Amino acid sequence: MIRAAIVGYGNIGKSVYEAISASEDISLEYIVSSKQLDIDVAVLKNISELTDVDVAILCSPSRAVPEIAASLLSKGISTVDSYDIHSNIADVRTKLDKVAKENNCAAIIAAGWDPGTDSVVRALLLAMVPRGITYTNFGPGMSMGHTVAVKAIPGVRDALSMTIPTGSGVHRRMVYVELDQGADFEKVSELILNDDYFVHDETRVIRVDDIDLLKDVGHGVNLIRKGVSGTTHNQRIEFSMSINNPALTGQVLVSSARAVTKQKPGCYTMIEIPPIDFLYGDIDKLIRDLV
Amino acid sequence: MIRAAIVGYGNIGKSVYEAISASEDISLEYIVSSKQLDIDVAVLKNISELTDVDVAILCSPSRAVPEIAASLLSKGISTVDSYDIHSNIADVRTKLDKVAKENNCAAIIAAGWDPGTDSVVRALLLAMVPRGITYTNFGPGMSMGHTVAVKAIPGVRDALSMTIPTGSGVHRRMVYVELDQGADFEKVSELILNDDYFVHDETRVIRVDDIDLLKDVGHGVNLIRKGVSGTTHNQRIEFSMSINNPALTGQVLVSSARAVTKQKPGCYTMIEIPPIDFLYGDIDKLIRDLV
Repeated sequence: MIRAAIVGYGNIGKSVYEAISASEDISLEYIVSSKQLDIDVAVLKNISELTDVDVAILCSPSRAVPEIAASLLSKGISTVDSYDIHSNIADVRTKLDKVAKENNCAAIIAAGWDPGTDSVVRALLLAMVPRGITYTNFGPGMSMGHTVAVKAIPGVRDALSMTIPTGSGVHRRMVYVELDQGADFEKVSELILNDDYFVHDETRVIRVDDIDLLKDVGHGVNLIRKGVSGTTHNQRIEFSMSINNPALTGQVLVSSARAVTKQKPGCYTMIEIPPIDFLYGDIDKLIRDLV
Repeated sequence: MIRAAIVGYGNIGKSVYEAISASEDISLEYIVSSKQLDIDVAVLKNISELTDVDVAILCSPSRAVPEIAASLLSKGISTVDSYDIHSNIADVRTKLDKVAKENNCAAIIAAGWDPGTDSVVRALLLAMVPRGITYTNFGPGMSMGHTVAVKAIPGVRDALSMTIPTGSGVHRRMVYVELDQGADFEKVSELILNDDYFVHDETRVIRVDDIDLLKDVGHGVNLIRKGVSGTTHNQRIEFSMSINNPALTGQVLVSSARAVTKQKPGCYTMIEIPPIDFLYGDIDKLIRDLV
């Protein structure tokens, strides 16, 4: 059995708990959370108390992940995370790679669905069709980052920013807002449209009475590549999904926790991991079933 | 530069030639073919003459591949192939793994699109959605094996067997036949319907005057998985493509030729290879572009 800990117990942490419960080869030893949890697992208040596990599954907000990962790796505990700040991933990988190698353990970063499994699909499509364009179309689904940005605007009591795909990698933002009493919708709307998060996309702002009635963690992606294999044009490949977002992220993290225990010391993204390493079971049987 | 040879120069061999021409990091040193070729590459009559290459790309019929691969690996030449007899792949891998390790080289087998890239997608879907059913729907496209089986039936001058997907992994066979003069269509039709290749599938036999007018190497796949991530049901993922069959197979072989040079000695299927190894370019840049 792989001995695992969950670090951070929000939406993703709960989904990781469920995915570990459904796995045959991973045991949950600890949850690290500053909150009181009504759960039948040993709860530690701080990562400094964590010891005696093979892998820590990091479910903290992305911006906190690099520091937590470095701290655990420096104690020789392997980590996986779903760090999703695309522009920083390569640099975080370089930093954690050094720490992991120095302490004889391993990390898999950006192990969610995008970045994560979508990245693997993009790599595979590039191997199949080296010239051409890949479009990644997200949604319809809630964008956490955009929602948080709207909530920070004065006059907004609650908000929900939906990402709507309009094709060829272009997206519309549908922003639903519940206003504080006396707030001016026109003013709030203008602040949203001029916010850095929204200024580059087509954005519609809609006023609603109760945001809670709109919340749904369903999400999706439609990834398309059209291009050239060898010298032959018009090769078309498409990958689509309709999924519960935290459930898929939690599952990918748990499959990655399995994979990280099979890697040599270092830090990896999912495109650097043999796909079979994410799976439970006998290698020969997996090859017979899947290949 | 990776020094490569093409072994066998039929449809797939030609596509490999094109894919190597379009690559930046692979040079074609030899073609091994018993035929006379009007081509600006050194042609060798037999694999026994082959030497001084990093990888041989095997484009011979599948049933000949295991022996050719073993022979080249025993000389220390790495190989890739698109061996497609699904039920034998695991056993061929075990045999070639031993030869490769003894001779300090590597092989990637079953590196086409199914088996091959579809296998990688099936592995990825299993990591994302561990419980559920994957359906692989092929076509519409020509089945080589079924076409050969029809051509062997007395009275058939030429034939084409198309695979038509009817959903949930079930297929219809549309068999087009051009008859020898005086052949009895009813009799030929009965022989086809009772042939081992067709007896398990819905099959329609259609008589045409000229098979050549029907030939098209376009093919496709629609791979669907619906199942459970963690404890959350109704996760739906789909992978589809519409492709020129030999062009894609040739490209996957060439990407695999690149990957095989990066592996430790042994024999691998594509699900055992880190996806980034199939790609040309700087690792850090690939991570920035794809992850």
